[in-house]
Formats: sequence, C-alpha cells, structure tokens
Amino acid sequence: MKKSIGAKPLLCPSPVWVIGTYDAEGKPNIMTASWAGTCCSSPPCVAVSLRSATYSHAGIQLNQAFTVNVMPRSMMAESDFCGIASGRDTNKWEKAGLTPVRSELVNAPYIAEAPFVAECVLKHTAELGLHTMFVGEIVDLKADATVLNDKGKPEMKKIDPFLFSMGDMQYFAVGEVIAKAFEVGKIFCD
Amino acid sequence: MKKSIGAKPLLCPSPVWVIGTYDAEGKPNIMTASWAGTCCSSPPCVAVSLRSATYSHAGIQLNQAFTVNVMPRSMMAESDFCGIASGRDTNKWEKAGLTPVRSELVNAPYIAEAPFVAECVLKHTAELGLHTMFVGEIVDLKADATVLNDKGKPEMKKIDPFLFSMGDMQYFAVGEVIAKAFEVGKIFCD
Repeated sequence: MKKSIGAKPLLCPSPVWVIGTYDAEGKPNIMTASWAGTCCSSPPCVAVSLRSATYSHAGIQLNQAFTVNVMPRSMMAESDFCGIASGRDTNKWEKAGLTPVRSELVNAPYIAEAPFVAECVLKHTAELGLHTMFVGEIVDLKADATVLNDKGKPEMKKIDPFLFSMGDMQYFAVGEVIAKAFEVGKIFCD
Repeated sequence: MKKSIGAKPLLCPSPVWVIGTYDAEGKPNIMTASWAGTCCSSPPCVAVSLRSATYSHAGIQLNQAFTVNVMPRSMMAESDFCGIASGRDTNKWEKAGLTPVRSELVNAPYIAEAPFVAECVLKHTAELGLHTMFVGEIVDLKADATVLNDKGKPEMKKIDPFLFSMGDMQYFAVGEVIAKAFEVGKIFCD
C-alpha cells in the first residue's frame, strides 16, 4: 500500500544544466535549471523551464535562443551559485570565474569551461504556471575533446555531470555503468 | 576550442521512468521513457515525450492521463524490457512480473512494484517531430514507506533510480550525495 504525499514536484533524478542567454543590451547571462530534459530525437530538442521572474526568461523570449551547458561535478559550486544569484545585479561570470563564448549559430553565449554544450533556437513555449517551459531545437552540440571517445561520441563518465533531487535538496554524483541499454531487458523477451 | 558534434539528442543525464496508460479497451500498458523531466513547480508538472508510433501515445491522448513510475536500479532489466517490447502484441506486465494498480485519481494505472509514482492529468501537448511531448500535471505522488525519511519526504538514495545516456547507450547508477543544493555555491556570494 503506497502512501500519498500530495501534488509536489519531487520526481527524481533531475539534471543540473546551466542556461546561457543574452539580455537586451547583449550582456551574457547564465542561470541554473534542473526542470529540464531532452524532449525529441528528431529534430533533437530540449525542454528547459524557467520562472518568469528570472532575468534569463526575458533573454530567451527576446533572442529566441539559449544554450544548455552540461556542468561537471568539478564545477558544482559554480553551478549552484548560478542558481542563487541573479544576473540583474550580479556578474555571475566574473564571480564564478566563467567565460562567455559567443555562439556562431544562435544568439546566445555558452560557457567556455563547460565540457559539453548545446546551442538551441526556441521552437515552442508553454506557460505552465510558476514556470514557463521553453523547448529549444538543438542546432549543434559542442564538446571538449577530453569528453569524447575514440569514435567522437561524448561519454557521460568523462563529462561527469551531477544530479539534483528536490526531495533531498541535495546534489548527487553519477555512479558507475550498470548495464547496456536496449539489451539488459532482453531476458524477458522470448 | 570545442569540437562540433552536430545536431543530436545526446544531452545527459536522462532519467529512466516507466509511463502507465490504459488503451481503448481499458487494458493497462507500460513503456519506458527517458525523454522526460519535471517542467513546473506550481502546479507540479512533468513532461514526457513518446513517439506517435508507440501504443502508449494513443492511450495518453484517449484518457488524457498517465502515470510516471520511477524505477529502481533493482528493476533495471524490467524497465529496459518495457522500452523494447510493444504493448500491442506483448503483455509486458506478465512477462516482467509487474502488477498494474488502478489509480483512484486519474484514468491510468501505476506499477505496484515501483517505489515512487506520479499520477498525472494531461495539461499540454506539443508535436515536436519524431516525439510528441505530453505535459502532465501531477495530482498526487505515491511512495512506498521504505523510500520516505522520518519527515515523510522521498529520498533519492532510498528510491535508487538509475540514469540513461544516449551517447553511451548505457544505464548508470546514481552515486553518492556530493553537496547541499542552494548552499555549496554561496562561497561565490559576497
């Protein structure tokens, strides 16, 4: 018998991604988002939800573009900070020692120090309540050579991203490989 | 200098959740989804993307409801299987040893053996390409007592969910707690 715990946003796990935008003056801004995930394979799309009160929210609407920066565990404090401070009154780049890079493909900056980034154009917007969901079409992924395997594919253990759990209010590391996808379940096929 | 790796759905990490629906005859169905994530805090909402070719896709449209079942690492093979077989021609419940439970709140079944589930009513639909994104409003979360802490909150280490990475085509465990959210970044505030 399961216990009811009410209507709450406590599903887990969630990623910790930092979203890059420009403001009306072309100033680069970054903020952390965990209400986010891949939402289409073709064209590749990612959904990112931000509160309308955030400085980044207006930047996405204005430029119809954003970047998703997959942050490594080694930059956990920098990532957390980008979810605490506001770009309205703080230069987060300077404080956290991060460097904006102008995307050549979309009107948004990505983080030089992030090992794996997606450049996105806004494809769909949904007002859901406290959060607005922005669906971006990924026009390119860019990765540091250090996170690619010998076939040129990004490896999660090399990126070393981390996780957020709202129920715990904690960050978690990504653990070890446990099985091959679309293989381990074949034991139930006959 | 980052390397371009093209427009691909390779962001990571992604959750491994199993989606519960009824078909037109009221038969319960389940399928695995990793293109998914929380997308609003209030009302709490979750986005789940399915290909229109899947059997579950029609079930969500028909009943305007679905469940999200957070699967533990111990049920990794069962979860993987639910992403390989189709409910059109396979009784996945029987093959994987899973038990459907009729939700009293939404017209969808959840999995008795899943430790943490969300019951959702369809709030928004977006056709993005290969995938349709379904946004569900969470009307209740239900949890096994074994995954709750002494304050009645779900703990991720007790749920023990696992992760998918499309770049690796592997499942990963959730690792250890590494920091308190909205705290560790304060070192950059002054």
